[in-house]
Amino acid sequence: MSNSTLNIIKIGGNVIDDDIQLEAFLEKFAAIPGKKILVHGGGKIATRIAAKLDIEAKMIDGRRVTDESMLDVVTMVYAGLTNKKIVAKLQKYQCDAIGLSGADGNVIKSVKRPVREIDYGFVGDILADSVNTLAIKKFLDAGFTPVFSAITHNGVGQLLNTNADTIASALSTCLSRLYETSLIYCFEKNGVLADISDDNSVIESITAKKFEDYKQKGIISDGMIPKLENAFDAINKGVKSVYIGNAANLHLFQQQKFGTCLVNK
Amino acid sequence: MSNSTLNIIKIGGNVIDDDIQLEAFLEKFAAIPGKKILVHGGGKIATRIAAKLDIEAKMIDGRRVTDESMLDVVTMVYAGLTNKKIVAKLQKYQCDAIGLSGADGNVIKSVKRPVREIDYGFVGDILADSVNTLAIKKFLDAGFTPVFSAITHNGVGQLLNTNADTIASALSTCLSRLYETSLIYCFEKNGVLADISDDNSVIESITAKKFEDYKQKGIISDGMIPKLENAFDAINKGVKSVYIGNAANLHLFQQQKFGTCLVNK
Repeated sequence: MSNSTLNIIKIGGNVIDDDIQLEAFLEKFAAIPGKKILVHGGGKIATRIAAKLDIEAKMIDGRRVTDESMLDVVTMVYAGLTNKKIVAKLQKYQCDAIGLSGADGNVIKSVKRPVREIDYGFVGDILADSVNTLAIKKFLDAGFTPVFSAITHNGVGQLLNTNADTIASALSTCLSRLYETSLIYCFEKNGVLADISDDNSVIESITAKKFEDYKQKGIISDGMIPKLENAFDAINKGVKSVYIGNAANLHLFQQQKFGTCLVNK
Repeated sequence: MSNSTLNIIKIGGNVIDDDIQLEAFLEKFAAIPGKKILVHGGGKIATRIAAKLDIEAKMIDGRRVTDESMLDVVTMVYAGLTNKKIVAKLQKYQCDAIGLSGADGNVIKSVKRPVREIDYGFVGDILADSVNTLAIKKFLDAGFTPVFSAITHNGVGQLLNTNADTIASALSTCLSRLYETSLIYCFEKNGVLADISDDNSVIESITAKKFEDYKQKGIISDGMIPKLENAFDAINKGVKSVYIGNAANLHLFQQQKFGTCLVNK
């Protein structure tokens, strides 16, 4: 175990869709010292481009299916347009970024989701040995900041579409074997809120025990529950801390005033 | 000067447009031992997708102009779809490829072409100090095979469209300071032909002196002249040898039976 710290930051689609918000976020990301990784989601551009190309967004039971045409679109948009725009902006802010899909340097090898009730198409699931920590360490040691798009590959020539939250979580658990790793989820709220209608009611810190307590009292509910369950799962697997907060506040991360911090104690 | 050799191989659009030809080529490329780099052109997919998105291909005096919408399309297609498909296939053939635009690791910084009679839009010209040989050396030394798409950046956040032949040539001249570098142009003919109507009349080897001779006699003419002039320019700038031959014959490269070899003697 190295003493070196690593921050893995996940940015969602809503910031990516707004050029001004995105650049402001990237400037803040670039300013974070030390080893770091950015994982970005897709945004609505892929859906817009697919529609223009007459590619229908297929849904089964409310879940998106990635057919071959849609895989081409997400590969173009996520690994091409969005990833390269982000990398070029980070270079502007003196962050030596390098954009990666899972195929590049074989960094993330996934498995096409088995067909059971639903055929999700070209969707890649992450397994325990999916993350090539050695390759990622090479990039980090060489001074590069990896920027991951949510495209992976199966190792035998097939690209696959993978959830960006899952990639961020898998990277953080695997790399926590080599680095003291923190995982930072950026979204549109200031953190986990004690009062859902008050964006200033951020709960600064939550332990697993407190989380159970909040759940029972109904303070934390709905969509926030699986998010926090995944976060505590990462902590149980070796990640030092998980933060959840507003992308616009990333500059507060260094002052340890960013969003809600989840810790294992 | 290291004794280590480096092969830089440029593949054009016609092979990229054909999935079967492309995979056959990539299998041969993967089999070449030692340090190597692939540079790929665009193919017709970008034009097709631009048309479907109602983006007009703008031409002035027969030269393509890259406006903002077209830049988005070439970034998506070249740096996204084509680049990642190639990288995934190379991984299949045990070649540890990593796809790069000029922005990734700041490997190629270009300058937006100055507006004189024609405004070419978002086109990046390569200068003497454009190629970041140190960064590329890091990738090569770490065991990766860089795969360049023809997208560069200006260092302050703007992506730019750059000719793939120019990228291959600039990489080879700059990297020849660090490696014994050969540049291999793959196209649809078997090499430089003594008789243009006979694809088996390949001239095995041409010196600069012989080239002048062939030009005067009209044996080499038309589009082949600027190609060879660029090749000899690379040789004058330190590249050890330049090969021109058929992508389908790349397996013959190791046996030194590939196309036409240009040498400086």
